[in-house]
Amino acid sequence: MDFKEIKEFLLNCEDAVILTHKSPDGDTFGSAFALCRVLRNMGKRVNVLCSDGFPERYSFLYEGCEGDNTLIEPKCVIAVDIADVTLMGKNLACYQQEGAVDLCIDHHISNKHYAKKTYVDAQASATALVLYELFKYMEVEIDTQTASCLYTGIATDTGCFKYENTTVKAHIAAAELISMGVPFASINRRMFDLKSQSRIMVEQIATSNIEYYFGGKLSMIVITKELMQNSGAEDSEFDGIASIPISVEGVKMGITVKQRGSHTYKLSVRTTDEIDASQFCKNFGGGGHIRAAGCEISGDLDEVRGKILELAGKYFGV
Amino acid sequence: MDFKEIKEFLLNCEDAVILTHKSPDGDTFGSAFALCRVLRNMGKRVNVLCSDGFPERYSFLYEGCEGDNTLIEPKCVIAVDIADVTLMGKNLACYQQEGAVDLCIDHHISNKHYAKKTYVDAQASATALVLYELFKYMEVEIDTQTASCLYTGIATDTGCFKYENTTVKAHIAAAELISMGVPFASINRRMFDLKSQSRIMVEQIATSNIEYYFGGKLSMIVITKELMQNSGAEDSEFDGIASIPISVEGVKMGITVKQRGSHTYKLSVRTTDEIDASQFCKNFGGGGHIRAAGCEISGDLDEVRGKILELAGKYFGV
Repeated sequence: MDFKEIKEFLLNCEDAVILTHKSPDGDTFGSAFALCRVLRNMGKRVNVLCSDGFPERYSFLYEGCEGDNTLIEPKCVIAVDIADVTLMGKNLACYQQEGAVDLCIDHHISNKHYAKKTYVDAQASATALVLYELFKYMEVEIDTQTASCLYTGIATDTGCFKYENTTVKAHIAAAELISMGVPFASINRRMFDLKSQSRIMVEQIATSNIEYYFGGKLSMIVITKELMQNSGAEDSEFDGIASIPISVEGVKMGITVKQRGSHTYKLSVRTTDEIDASQFCKNFGGGGHIRAAGCEISGDLDEVRGKILELAGKYFGV
Repeated sequence: MDFKEIKEFLLNCEDAVILTHKSPDGDTFGSAFALCRVLRNMGKRVNVLCSDGFPERYSFLYEGCEGDNTLIEPKCVIAVDIADVTLMGKNLACYQQEGAVDLCIDHHISNKHYAKKTYVDAQASATALVLYELFKYMEVEIDTQTASCLYTGIATDTGCFKYENTTVKAHIAAAELISMGVPFASINRRMFDLKSQSRIMVEQIATSNIEYYFGGKLSMIVITKELMQNSGAEDSEFDGIASIPISVEGVKMGITVKQRGSHTYKLSVRTTDEIDASQFCKNFGGGGHIRAAGCEISGDLDEVRGKILELAGKYFGV
């Protein structure tokens, strides 16, 4: 389907709900609330839904636009930035059955084409960038708040224009959007610089347990059950630390080891481009991507550490 | 002076040295090595100089372009991104006397106009952005390496397009430069994500000493002489932690207290836009900017902490 078809679809839709993915991020929310505003400006009744609710962190995107399942009986269901129905989450299970979604707009090459109509631009840095180009094609008004939603989607999915997926179009869109008065510096501070007190604590615990091996080429952080319990933080809060070991200068492989059971440990492996993380994890029955993979190893901690270092030694020529 | 004049100056200059500021950053180096490459492409002899040498961190900018004081007797001296002669550093003292610098290209509004000719664009996000526009005006070839230098200058001075000083022009320039093949993702990883082992340790020490007051509106990190000595890191490595206390959600004022003498403590105060940091520091005989200021307080640590909390209490309505 092309922009012409989407335009016709949107002009004709009534009483729409816009679905976002679970564990919402800046792109799914930025896209959804931008689209919600544009459709509401056309006089339509529209709501945004998210299985995990609306975290305070994104309140600047949804203020006055919160979704409410009870408000309307949808005649039209639109999914944004959702590659697969399983990503909708358990509270949106009713939309996971075949034919439940009328239109899906996305930028993930892995999109499963579960909707009746799907528009995927896998070259786009963010779904919000697809929508920005669509809105320009449709010649709808983009006010400052809508521009802020679109900017947030593009900025968050590119790590603030830092990552490989940043394109010429992403920078051009950012230039145009900030010229519309987007308060980008405060958005970026909120999205990239601010950390919760417990996040600060979790990172402190992680870095105080960092180990270096093979002349600093391997770094490893081990988080035991005991450490998590003593911290008072939620176990899930420790999920975000997997990027820390690989962020150290000179490190080629960064491993985070998180205890699950009394004798099971979950590994998150990150590598620079010289080492295949998924290959490494396959040795322990896991898998993943070239630079980010995972697996589980059983044993007591000393055994697990020993198995990791034995295999890693082969990579670092020991 | 305008671009036409700078163009004539550069076309006519021979045996040039390009000066960068002490404690070099991505903008002074990016600007200098971009200009160096453009002038060398014109067949001129050119060197880049820096009082603090050429840190490994920036090797991707200077490879094959390192400066060497002995190589040429300069007939022409150009300063880039240096607002004041004092910023040249002690090893470039010979260029600090009046009339020593022929041309200065800068973007700091505070530029002291110490050079014979000065071009300052205070609206520009980075000196590298001024040079990019100049090169386009001059219609010189911008190869991938030169583009990488310019991109690095713009990216580093804007915090990767995150800060208030990011302009429409900065995004447009980034779009054009990355289309020239700049390996921006690896540059950004190096400039923004990688940390040294000792930096990781210093941050760990800092966050393990974080204190919260007034319901989390004030956060404070106290670094004593003893803590610094036990860490094994250089005292100066603790200078970078001043941004940590203000990075916590809900914090309106973040204070880093670093012990200098047995009874003197140096404060770095950062605030959100609701509180004037320089006003706060004036109470202790210091000063600075609205959101970043500093001062010194004498006394033992308990007295110093008491003085800070007493004054802060007035701000937080206690």
